[in-house]
Amino acid sequence: MSVDAAPLAGLRIDGDRLVRRLLELGEIGAIEGTDGCARLALTDEDRDGRDLVLSWMRDLGLDVTIDGIGNVIGVMPQRDGAPWSTQPVMTGSHIDTVGTGGKYDGNLGVLAGLEVIETAMTEIAAGRLTLDRPLAVGWFTDEEGARFPPDMLGSLVYVGGLPLEEALDITDRDGVTVGDELDRIGYRGTAPIPGPVPHAFVELHIEQGPVLEDEGITIGAVTGVQGISWTELTITGWSAHAGTTPMRLRRDPGLVAARINVFVRELTERFGGAQVGTCGVVSHVPNLVNVVPSQVTMTVDLRNTDESILQRAEAELRAFVVEAAEAEGCAVESRSLARFEPVEFDERVIGIVETTAASLGHSVRRMPSGAGHDAQMLARVCPTAMIFTPSVKGISHNVTEFTEPDDLAAGANVLLHTMLHLAGTPADGADAFANAAGGAR
Amino acid sequence: MSVDAAPLAGLRIDGDRLVRRLLELGEIGAIEGTDGCARLALTDEDRDGRDLVLSWMRDLGLDVTIDGIGNVIGVMPQRDGAPWSTQPVMTGSHIDTVGTGGKYDGNLGVLAGLEVIETAMTEIAAGRLTLDRPLAVGWFTDEEGARFPPDMLGSLVYVGGLPLEEALDITDRDGVTVGDELDRIGYRGTAPIPGPVPHAFVELHIEQGPVLEDEGITIGAVTGVQGISWTELTITGWSAHAGTTPMRLRRDPGLVAARINVFVRELTERFGGAQVGTCGVVSHVPNLVNVVPSQVTMTVDLRNTDESILQRAEAELRAFVVEAAEAEGCAVESRSLARFEPVEFDERVIGIVETTAASLGHSVRRMPSGAGHDAQMLARVCPTAMIFTPSVKGISHNVTEFTEPDDLAAGANVLLHTMLHLAGTPADGADAFANAAGGAR
Repeated sequence: MSVDAAPLAGLRIDGDRLVRRLLELGEIGAIEGTDGCARLALTDEDRDGRDLVLSWMRDLGLDVTIDGIGNVIGVMPQRDGAPWSTQPVMTGSHIDTVGTGGKYDGNLGVLAGLEVIETAMTEIAAGRLTLDRPLAVGWFTDEEGARFPPDMLGSLVYVGGLPLEEALDITDRDGVTVGDELDRIGYRGTAPIPGPVPHAFVELHIEQGPVLEDEGITIGAVTGVQGISWTELTITGWSAHAGTTPMRLRRDPGLVAARINVFVRELTERFGGAQVGTCGVVSHVPNLVNVVPSQVTMTVDLRNTDESILQRAEAELRAFVVEAAEAEGCAVESRSLARFEPVEFDERVIGIVETTAASLGHSVRRMPSGAGHDAQMLARVCPTAMIFTPSVKGISHNVTEFTEPDDLAAGANVLLHTMLHLAGTPADGADAFANAAGGAR
Repeated sequence: MSVDAAPLAGLRIDGDRLVRRLLELGEIGAIEGTDGCARLALTDEDRDGRDLVLSWMRDLGLDVTIDGIGNVIGVMPQRDGAPWSTQPVMTGSHIDTVGTGGKYDGNLGVLAGLEVIETAMTEIAAGRLTLDRPLAVGWFTDEEGARFPPDMLGSLVYVGGLPLEEALDITDRDGVTVGDELDRIGYRGTAPIPGPVPHAFVELHIEQGPVLEDEGITIGAVTGVQGISWTELTITGWSAHAGTTPMRLRRDPGLVAARINVFVRELTERFGGAQVGTCGVVSHVPNLVNVVPSQVTMTVDLRNTDESILQRAEAELRAFVVEAAEAEGCAVESRSLARFEPVEFDERVIGIVETTAASLGHSVRRMPSGAGHDAQMLARVCPTAMIFTPSVKGISHNVTEFTEPDDLAAGANVLLHTMLHLAGTPADGADAFANAAGGAR
């Protein structure tokens, strides 16, 4: 950036305005009696939320485009109104929520992006800052996937990962399509799909986990997204009377499920590191006190940042499931519900986030994301990273989701200075990516 | 019995008629497309079933009484019509079913009792048999407890285990009382409660378990009913995201439930003998693939024929539950859902069943009952035992419940000769119970 380093280092977003806007947006679809809200993708509530954020974008004078899947991107105009000749440094997230959502998940990334741009534009207007590249903020349709699976739909389409026509035909449980709902709420736009490739992408998001709070750290420099392996196991045994059936004649799928649950914990302890494993679903049929279940459905969620270790965990699980079922005389059917390889963010952008956080005086740690985010889609087309702020008690997708105002501001300020760094010319005159091979990938 | 042993030993019930009646009764409340039926206690279907069996009792000329809880008892008249001066040898069971019942559970005991009496009365009328005591057959109201808990309600009231007034006030899920339903279907009778104490009671029932079939044995001489201990555990942990929550920060009640399930199996293997244990209910909340459950409700069903061993199993379970929950940082609430001490049947009656089965050429083994039966209530007031016939695949409380016709006849013939033995004077001239202390207990 062609300005003195000193005054710029002191630049901050307006934390009060950020919180005010988060609360105002959270009022739309508010769940009575709670702090939460429900704005499932492409519902009336989502439309009202979109209209509000769009009005803030337009108030700010951004050049707004809406594409065919309803993604909305606002780009900072040049001071003289001329078109930019360079791709923007982009931030963004989503403003749809799950059915029992909070005010922060997704919304923070979008509204903090607005703060970043408003803060930068004020400096530019005052002649205290010029940038080589514009800043942009966007929100992506149906990130939660709670109404229209899969999740991260809008960003997936944005980067060309799914043809627009297929996405528009996706239906919710009532058979209503994405395309019809986009038309109904007035958000089927004309901007091209796939969308323009940014110079870089940085997303600010609440952690949705307990690590930062537990360790007393303010900023996470996110290194990537864990690979995910979801398996559904249907274990079939022999329904039997709990009183009249001797143990030796039992084929109890509930016991097999229990052994698998214990095994998954043991595997995570043995593997250590980033390996996590969860048996979230365990459903007994008929689920009666005096009947040995005839069938149990369970799920195993395995995640790791390292694809080869994740594959090893999957192989060990498969072998154990067969062994445990055979020992009890049960049959097992296994079905993959989801499988994503780990995503690695751009080392240069991660480094800028980390350095920026430290230079602003915040404690910072590198960490993977355990949840999926729009940034992992953008990482397919441009240098990308994420910034995490703490989630109180690690809670998200819940009306009690909360992040302290100071942490919200800290995250937004790290986003501000990271984006300024990526958009300007560093003090040494070199492009932020000049020394690294490849550029956009 | 004051007859020659030889012709009497050849006496048999009419197996075809028994099967015909079982099928005819099973048509009432038949579940379309299956072999099963539904005659929940005191419904229209139960009334229709009662009317049919009552008509068979009256056709046979039995002296029928109906008591205040709707139990129906039919006693064989004296040949000369004079009142009996001795208490009857009684058999019986129930004709209500669960919502997805079969044709045999309960019904067999009642209709085989009718066969026994009809067979004996034919011999008496022909002057080939005289008995010192009458034979009686009854059916008890609401044995299943599927509509009005607790189960074995009618026999409990019959033996004075629950005041009639309390029983009449019991309601079903819709708030309808036993008393009102008895009035509605016309089965609130006037015979006194508690009912007359029989000389002895013998109940024929399908095993409802797989042991006889598995071992290729035709007759079970039932030694008693297992003691039952039902515990509901509510384990509370910490709902957390399956991706973002490191293993060290988890409090997973699903894992605790799994460890308890594995422990229960291990306990039964270590205890051996009659010890059985079942975790029939396991309910995760929220039961989602990517959420560590916040709470799990599970049940543990422990049964043993020995009260002191059952108490030891309960104590070990309690200790393990506390240990497993603490290790995971979870809280547990424990609630007893049911607790019954084991019931021991009368050694003399068991011996007669065993000897009779062998003398008729059937394979026989002593075994406890894993399920509850009306006989365990009668055992409170008179010498009692039960006869089991095989259940194909151990299935009961299910529309596929089945027992081979030959096994039905075998069980009914063992019931016939056991009751004749108990009702008559043995060849040596002594009463069946004369050499044992106590008589009725």
